[in-house]
Amino acid sequence: MISPSLLSADFTNLEKEIKILKEERVDFLHLDIMDGNYVPNISYGPGIVKSLRPLTDIPFDTHLMIERPENFIEDFKNAGSDIITIHPSTTKHLDRTLSLIKSHGMKAGLALNPSDSLEVLDYTLDKLDLVLIMSVNPGFGGQKFIPSALRKISEVKKMIEERNINTLIEVDGGVKLDNAKEVLAAGADILVAGSAIFQKDKTRENIKAFKELL
Amino acid sequence: MISPSLLSADFTNLEKEIKILKEERVDFLHLDIMDGNYVPNISYGPGIVKSLRPLTDIPFDTHLMIERPENFIEDFKNAGSDIITIHPSTTKHLDRTLSLIKSHGMKAGLALNPSDSLEVLDYTLDKLDLVLIMSVNPGFGGQKFIPSALRKISEVKKMIEERNINTLIEVDGGVKLDNAKEVLAAGADILVAGSAIFQKDKTRENIKAFKELL
Amino acid sequence: MISPSLLSADFTNLEKEIKILKEERVDFLHLDIMDGNYVPNISYGPGIVKSLRPLTDIPFDTHLMIERPENFIEDFKNAGSDIITIHPSTTKHLDRTLSLIKSHGMKAGLALNPSDSLEVLDYTLDKLDLVLIMSVNPGFGGQKFIPSALRKISEVKKMIEERNINTLIEVDGGVKLDNAKEVLAAGADILVAGSAIFQKDKTRENIKAFKELL
Amino acid sequence: MISPSLLSADFTNLEKEIKILKEERVDFLHLDIMDGNYVPNISYGPGIVKSLRPLTDIPFDTHLMIERPENFIEDFKNAGSDIITIHPSTTKHLDRTLSLIKSHGMKAGLALNPSDSLEVLDYTLDKLDLVLIMSVNPGFGGQKFIPSALRKISEVKKMIEERNINTLIEVDGGVKLDNAKEVLAAGADILVAGSAIFQKDKTRENIKAFKELL
Amino acid sequence: MISPSLLSADFTNLEKEIKILKEERVDFLHLDIMDGNYVPNISYGPGIVKSLRPLTDIPFDTHLMIERPENFIEDFKNAGSDIITIHPSTTKHLDRTLSLIKSHGMKAGLALNPSDSLEVLDYTLDKLDLVLIMSVNPGFGGQKFIPSALRKISEVKKMIEERNINTLIEVDGGVKLDNAKEVLAAGADILVAGSAIFQKDKTRENIKAFKELL
Amino acid sequence: MISPSLLSADFTNLEKEIKILKEERVDFLHLDIMDGNYVPNISYGPGIVKSLRPLTDIPFDTHLMIERPENFIEDFKNAGSDIITIHPSTTKHLDRTLSLIKSHGMKAGLALNPSDSLEVLDYTLDKLDLVLIMSVNPGFGGQKFIPSALRKISEVKKMIEERNINTLIEVDGGVKLDNAKEVLAAGADILVAGSAIFQKDKTRENIKAFKELL
Repeated sequence: MISPSLLSADFTNLEKEIKILKEERVDFLHLDIMDGNYVPNISYGPGIVKSLRPLTDIPFDTHLMIERPENFIEDFKNAGSDIITIHPSTTKHLDRTLSLIKSHGMKAGLALNPSDSLEVLDYTLDKLDLVLIMSVNPGFGGQKFIPSALRKISEVKKMIEERNINTLIEVDGGVKLDNAKEVLAAGADILVAGSAIFQKDKTRENIKAFKELL
Repeated sequence: MISPSLLSADFTNLEKEIKILKEERVDFLHLDIMDGNYVPNISYGPGIVKSLRPLTDIPFDTHLMIERPENFIEDFKNAGSDIITIHPSTTKHLDRTLSLIKSHGMKAGLALNPSDSLEVLDYTLDKLDLVLIMSVNPGFGGQKFIPSALRKISEVKKMIEERNINTLIEVDGGVKLDNAKEVLAAGADILVAGSAIFQKDKTRENIKAFKELL
Repeated sequence: MISPSLLSADFTNLEKEIKILKEERVDFLHLDIMDGNYVPNISYGPGIVKSLRPLTDIPFDTHLMIERPENFIEDFKNAGSDIITIHPSTTKHLDRTLSLIKSHGMKAGLALNPSDSLEVLDYTLDKLDLVLIMSVNPGFGGQKFIPSALRKISEVKKMIEERNINTLIEVDGGVKLDNAKEVLAAGADILVAGSAIFQKDKTRENIKAFKELL
Repeated sequence: MISPSLLSADFTNLEKEIKILKEERVDFLHLDIMDGNYVPNISYGPGIVKSLRPLTDIPFDTHLMIERPENFIEDFKNAGSDIITIHPSTTKHLDRTLSLIKSHGMKAGLALNPSDSLEVLDYTLDKLDLVLIMSVNPGFGGQKFIPSALRKISEVKKMIEERNINTLIEVDGGVKLDNAKEVLAAGADILVAGSAIFQKDKTRENIKAFKELL
Repeated sequence: MISPSLLSADFTNLEKEIKILKEERVDFLHLDIMDGNYVPNISYGPGIVKSLRPLTDIPFDTHLMIERPENFIEDFKNAGSDIITIHPSTTKHLDRTLSLIKSHGMKAGLALNPSDSLEVLDYTLDKLDLVLIMSVNPGFGGQKFIPSALRKISEVKKMIEERNINTLIEVDGGVKLDNAKEVLAAGADILVAGSAIFQKDKTRENIKAFKELL
Repeated sequence: MISPSLLSADFTNLEKEIKILKEERVDFLHLDIMDGNYVPNISYGPGIVKSLRPLTDIPFDTHLMIERPENFIEDFKNAGSDIITIHPSTTKHLDRTLSLIKSHGMKAGLALNPSDSLEVLDYTLDKLDLVLIMSVNPGFGGQKFIPSALRKISEVKKMIEERNINTLIEVDGGVKLDNAKEVLAAGADILVAGSAIFQKDKTRENIKAFKELL
């Protein structure tokens, strides 16, 4: 499945951009929420997400790169989010925050940074709908796909299979047409792609190319 | 002068919205940057500001409702900001941060919250291009103009006149057509207006009405 | 008026202690809430306050020595608080937090530490029901009444009279029978007393002595 | 063993409540210290604990749900604590803080939240007298026993047996008469129970029922 | 009086540097303590200060540019400090921290940054031995003397004279031989100078030149 | 290899101390940077490090016991550091900070505190030049070598061998001549020693003794 990251879209014409995604039937819309505190960049928040909701019914795959995400769960629910993915170190009570997301009828995801090991999944994986494996460091520009992410995808895949659950693996960071196959082969279910998708006049074509790969 | 707050615009069609502002020749474009940390809301950051810059040469009047604004001055300079206004309690070294803004060739403003007294201006006013008087609490929705802001406008005006300097007074929060006169009479130079300006099909008309008042 | 500080009561028999206060008709019950963060001590929170509410209808005069009091306003309302007093440096948006207290139907107070100057009252006094002048540093044990508090009481009294409003002045810290007259003469309306009131078998007598002074 | 959580007792008559516990010979008195910072609730601090010490010699099993517990170790020692249990993420130097507890002649415990994995025990278990397994998220009300705690109890039990040490396992959160057997069977040594014990006129009976189970 | 700032000395030969200061009989040794948190630089701490103490009896004039200075008062007392100057925004309980300094038998100073107004002195000046007026922003390199510091010196001088107390005024930042007269004329009692004093082979000569001016 | 910790040297005569180290050909110079925030002590910062650089070409082995080390990487590069070792919990984006160190042409190390388990190495070890195993808690004085560090050294050694990489193991805390053999036998490559090396007139002799052991 494919989840284009809106961050690379043309923000001066979001309605048009969303229309293309809708017509090309992407699986998710990936929303990168950054607060300038957990990551050194501010992107956009629930207000802009809410303005997009009337334009499409593509599921909103919301990646919170923010401190204390528990304070924003309700805002994103009201904005129309379908999935909320958080980083473990951003909340003091992880199990509670995951439960809070689910209690609002949304799906819950957990993101692993490049340096994160898998132990955090030991007692959380069973309640996760999604594990987001970061193949770059979140919130910094101009990075390449970190190869050790492939090993991590395989290891998480193995955990999921051993537990016989349906948690999806999403991969975000430096995913391009030329490494997508490898990422999928390692066990990824959903690919996030930004600059590899949104390109003047080539967005449709790029989505098609990604969909063929899948 | 009038500085429409983009926060109330249609974010799915910013290019169109900017076009209207340009054609109606507003004086500034007011950009409300919120980080979910200094204020309980996340709005948008330098990336979106940058995408607007090619569309217009209206001066970008950037209001940073964020912690540690010193870390973002360069980003907003690169995004095309012309004025940067900060809150005194958000930076440990206020004089330094104001100098940093000016060293990047931008104008520097200081924002006063409704409960703030004027002492912070004693040793900063001389280097300020703008004092932003908040007539609501920043970052919270649905608030009305706080009347004591009028007294504050007059008192700041008096300080500016006594020092014989050119600092401008901008007023933000709950400014509507029906109280704008009073705000101007108290000494305001620039009015920020959001929902009083951006309204389906009425934006041009609203700007015209505000410009008539001025 | 007199507001005995529960902190000095016998916490193993609060029902008995409250009964005495009720029978001796004290004006308020002063509740010192400490979080170990704003002050280096943890006292007690809304749960214990709530357990006291059914025992008496003495107004609960709640002094929050905690960071981010805005997160606890609703809890203390539910616990039965009548007055909430906060410290200006503990909340990022003071005007907003005061409004929040009042929107819950409680009275709002602002506390001034021994080193605090009066400027914070310039744009808040009009919405305050109470100014709490700390005559010791909050949250530290074994301190004596700081004499400069007398000057501060007089200056706040003057501000209140000049504005022709009804804000009350409460004084907390080292108030004893032997300095109470002086404190009242300076302009105090409410005296907080802890160890000067709660003493084995002498509590009634102490309250009576304070009431005579008033 | 049983460790009734005082948080559910009648705080207006603690002397009476303690008397019952003493007569029914509970093993520990569980004290939930919350600071409104690590957890979103403030309960009570060392002052109230100290007032209880003269009433009984039941060991005080003190669970610190607070940030920077190292600053409060001495206060709780002076208040009469026998065991201090901390959360690993609340202190920057965990080994140091555990040593500090022991250097004051108290027993040291480490608490694991529902989402915590066991790796934190790798290099701390040997110096722990107690592992506290949270079967609810600390500091939030109205939660049910989280079933994955049973697996965690077994895994910690296994670690303890493999190392051939005497560390006790305590379980806290949603423990009732109807799930206590299961919890004990999984390997728990001490059960914390609050609302399942403290009930008007039924406290003695509840303790007896728990003691029979053990 | 003159207080050379050690920060500009040759740290590889401090014994030699101190010997020169001793022989030239400077009035104080100014120690700039920076923690990389309050200011964006780390300089040195109590350990190095302590190593200097046996070399001289010049009074140690210790300027703490650190967060939570209350935690370091005892360390600097043990290191041999005679004066401790703190910044008001770095401590939650300013009156308490000043008292703590004095309770250790040291003199207490308060530092004012370039943007700070004088209100913080209203209720602290009477217990201050020293007001340190920063004529640059602390902790940043390569800055020039900020002219508005002269006005601030005069205003503080006026406050001190009106209260008829002996508090000294120290000025720090960009003080050179060519502006020293002006600074003294405005009311300064002690000049801090770093790079204007410590210069290869010229240190003695520079001190003499400063002493002549005084 | 041996890396003497400068913290135990005579700071009033660093040039002399460095000369001895140079003549005795130690392998590294260990620099303990403390900020009073991550650890409860302030030692010294990049300025002092820079003053040492012209005196020797011994590689500077810089151990950052500071919060947000990413903000100081460039400063230490400019100061002449060759290796930078950080603590995982001090930076929000560990992989990024390690990359930043390497992008400046320095070697990157990761420090493990006594209570830290090894999982943090799972996805970082491949990019580490050094693992620093703390055998005392960093930043506190007067501690003895913690024996469980030996097990940790062996386990890290095993990980390194299994991955067939060249990462070095350094051990810091309580290393003396009498336990050095054991530490080396467990797998250590570099020993940090402070008070066991720097002793009046015995420094040369101590270094020689350590070098013989190696």
